[in-house]
Amino acid sequence: MARSYKTVVEDTRDGLRAEPEKARARFEAVSRQTGGLRSEVQTRQFLLTVDEPPALGGGDAGPNPVELILAALASCQEITYRLHADALGIPLEGVSTKVRGDLDLRGLFAAAEGVRPGFQGLTVEVSLVSSASDAELQRLRDVVERHCPVLDLLKNATPVAITAKRALAGPALAAG
Amino acid sequence: MARSYKTVVEDTRDGLRAEPEKARARFEAVSRQTGGLRSEVQTRQFLLTVDEPPALGGGDAGPNPVELILAALASCQEITYRLHADALGIPLEGVSTKVRGDLDLRGLFAAAEGVRPGFQGLTVEVSLVSSASDAELQRLRDVVERHCPVLDLLKNATPVAITAKRALAGPALAAG
Repeated sequence: MARSYKTVVEDTRDGLRAEPEKARARFEAVSRQTGGLRSEVQTRQFLLTVDEPPALGGGDAGPNPVELILAALASCQEITYRLHADALGIPLEGVSTKVRGDLDLRGLFAAAEGVRPGFQGLTVEVSLVSSASDAELQRLRDVVERHCPVLDLLKNATPVAITAKRALAGPALAAG
Repeated sequence: MARSYKTVVEDTRDGLRAEPEKARARFEAVSRQTGGLRSEVQTRQFLLTVDEPPALGGGDAGPNPVELILAALASCQEITYRLHADALGIPLEGVSTKVRGDLDLRGLFAAAEGVRPGFQGLTVEVSLVSSASDAELQRLRDVVERHCPVLDLLKNATPVAITAKRALAGPALAAG
């Protein structure tokens, strides 16, 4: 029997409504290029190796950045389905997701003007194992599509403030 | 001595200009929820475990989806700096990045109307180890900010087409 998140969602929602100043969560990643196109990224206690496939000049030591975007979208959909299915009392025995993105490499390589470097479009296929009615699943889907953080990030623009500064050479930053 | 990507970028750019139909690249991720809020995601030969921290109801078995977004942005900046520094002949001995995002949890938990579930804003701090002039680094930065795929994906909206279908129960989709 799977754990239900009904009380987790309800308690969290009540707490955030009572103290909205506690709703702000900050997330962080620290990365460095360790050789070739490879990056080692840390977020909390987790380390990720990111690289490019050989066709893009990399050493293929890990997924590439746009594949991480797809992984983020797939898993975020699944988490949001689980939380809101349980909160709504809609039975959901399983959820899986396939995400695909098409990209025009002329953007990254500056081979043509006016070609965006990011995905031109994404497709998401969600598979739901559920004994719920079609109407319940449609209701769940509507809620998930309004409240999934990564879906929101991709469908809508987000302000990004960038600073770039010169750093001193040091072993932590040396190219491999 | 680090490898230079100058010829990689130039050859790729020439190839994409000559045969723009080869510029289309498709990326894919397949994921399933394996228990609690945990997802196992596969992209090519790589497997990622995604989860939420205990404060958000998860088992903390991996980074969460929005942390993957930050990791993607950090590493994509670094890769784009490396490729274009080498292509432009601007010396760059090292690059590291710190990315931070602030999110209002009332969005995910549907605790308030009108609060977006995604990041409200992102900050990126890029550190460059380089003997280049300030003007060269500024030129490099301008090129990177126009051609970084993940930065583009976050700063701008992307069409997302979603289908959700009912699947048969099966071990591959069973909740843990």
